[in-house]
Amino acid sequence: MKCKVCRDAAVIDIRRHNANFCEEHFIRYCQQQVLRAIHDYDMLEPDDRVLVAVSGGKDSLAIWDILLDNGWKADGVYVGLGIGTYSDTSLEMTERYARSREVELITVDLRAEHGFDVPTASAETGRVPCSACGISKRHLFDSTAVSRGYDAVITGHNLDDEAAVLFGNVMSWQTDYLGRQRPMLPARDGFPKKAKPLMRLTERETAAYCVLRGIEYQIDECPMAVGNKHLAYKAALNDLDVESPGSKAAFYLGFLQRAVDRFEGDSGRGDLGQCARCGAPTDAAVCAFCRIVQRTEGAAAAPVEVVIKRYAGGRRRP
Amino acid sequence: MKCKVCRDAAVIDIRRHNANFCEEHFIRYCQQQVLRAIHDYDMLEPDDRVLVAVSGGKDSLAIWDILLDNGWKADGVYVGLGIGTYSDTSLEMTERYARSREVELITVDLRAEHGFDVPTASAETGRVPCSACGISKRHLFDSTAVSRGYDAVITGHNLDDEAAVLFGNVMSWQTDYLGRQRPMLPARDGFPKKAKPLMRLTERETAAYCVLRGIEYQIDECPMAVGNKHLAYKAALNDLDVESPGSKAAFYLGFLQRAVDRFEGDSGRGDLGQCARCGAPTDAAVCAFCRIVQRTEGAAAAPVEVVIKRYAGGRRRP
Repeated sequence: MKCKVCRDAAVIDIRRHNANFCEEHFIRYCQQQVLRAIHDYDMLEPDDRVLVAVSGGKDSLAIWDILLDNGWKADGVYVGLGIGTYSDTSLEMTERYARSREVELITVDLRAEHGFDVPTASAETGRVPCSACGISKRHLFDSTAVSRGYDAVITGHNLDDEAAVLFGNVMSWQTDYLGRQRPMLPARDGFPKKAKPLMRLTERETAAYCVLRGIEYQIDECPMAVGNKHLAYKAALNDLDVESPGSKAAFYLGFLQRAVDRFEGDSGRGDLGQCARCGAPTDAAVCAFCRIVQRTEGAAAAPVEVVIKRYAGGRRRP
Repeated sequence: MKCKVCRDAAVIDIRRHNANFCEEHFIRYCQQQVLRAIHDYDMLEPDDRVLVAVSGGKDSLAIWDILLDNGWKADGVYVGLGIGTYSDTSLEMTERYARSREVELITVDLRAEHGFDVPTASAETGRVPCSACGISKRHLFDSTAVSRGYDAVITGHNLDDEAAVLFGNVMSWQTDYLGRQRPMLPARDGFPKKAKPLMRLTERETAAYCVLRGIEYQIDECPMAVGNKHLAYKAALNDLDVESPGSKAAFYLGFLQRAVDRFEGDSGRGDLGQCARCGAPTDAAVCAFCRIVQRTEGAAAAPVEVVIKRYAGGRRRP
């Protein structure tokens, strides 16, 4: 197996591109794929100050690394979700990377600063943990970026993530979500610009990137996400991609090229006002994040394990 | 397990409807699902003379049976594809059913009347057998209906078939195919009206229908279709449906309700002329069927088994 570029020994094969790469040219390939995504979807200007939403996993550390290496002023923001030792390790990996690059890391701790954690929010709201987690992270990434004047929030969503979300939205023809599923959303109504420059790289590739670059990352899946549909969609897509390499990428990129515009009209939300509690843009009186804060006030902290068992495989509390 | 309607012992459970049925009410359920499809999509008028495209399998015999029982004047058309003993058994099952109902069956034999069979066409054109098979059947169903004055061609495509085709078209965002994927296509430009009234029933249900009605059918899958992508898509959808019953139906019916119109503009073919050889409507000088006839003239008949091995798992000859 030889590198497509230099014919040295290759360390990885990328079947959908019918290519093998040595370490040096694989790193370059990853960077090129990111730069191509940024270019194709007008994600960033060279002088944008960007805030990378970092979880300590392979994806967010990889995109932070690539943006730094390509000259962006990129700080990180980490949200402590309170998911037991999983969160402890995630923070450690994030801090270790930030120190190694001597870059700024902003940390927000849900429990310390907002009085709840994800297991407790899930128990109190009767929804799957991923729901409270997603609402909290989106809110805190956005509000941190806006209050500190960043030009964009960067998230580490990779090709597998985006294809799986698309798969779920297509299976149920959620036309509103389909109309919004773009890798770059411009700033609007108090929301910062948001972009997903890893959209062309798979999680296998971001993992290999970190390994080859010596970046330590949280290798465990979130224990609270076990059994969610997103993972089933990823598995279905991976099975198809093994049979027919490139079909996962064709599915997602083909959607962006030939279909997303057709659902644009469904994506509009109502007029946005300001959350009465925190001032964030919202179409309700109080934003979804502040509703969680209100519902969890005074609630006893739920242990991680109990919530995992209760919700495994289902969307709502039975 | 009790029948949802009469509380007698049930013989089948339909998880996506959260219902069990006894024999009598399962038969009625199947008929109601067919009548609902015919109504919802304006498929047929009560006095339409219909031509059922019959393969000898569970689906086409079930829909023929249901249409006859509901008062339609429904004749059958069978195309002999020349796929060894598989075709022999298929014809036998078809003729047996036609005799039992004392209805007219038109048979067309590819080899005797058009000089080729599916294995030979596949070998000569270098395409998967399903390609030549589909072209031949569509052509012969349409031309038989038009030349004999039938109002509609009925095919036995079931919910699994339609969902799997949709899945394939969505995976590659074939927007032209997506815009055409409706369960009823009105007559136009020399094509007859075509309808798929089994669109709401799964293949498990059409099989159970035949068993309970004492209809013998060809139980084997076509040996030449082994390894085609359609079957992989069916398997992926079935896995998801086991996890979340009803998701397959929601995928297909949701597409018809909320998405197909968005691709309507892509579905238009160019202006149609007449095939120089047979007069059928086509956008080429010679229609796809006649091109196969021309390519296979004088070709030695290919054995079924050789072609199966050559094409298993791939789309084109390597």
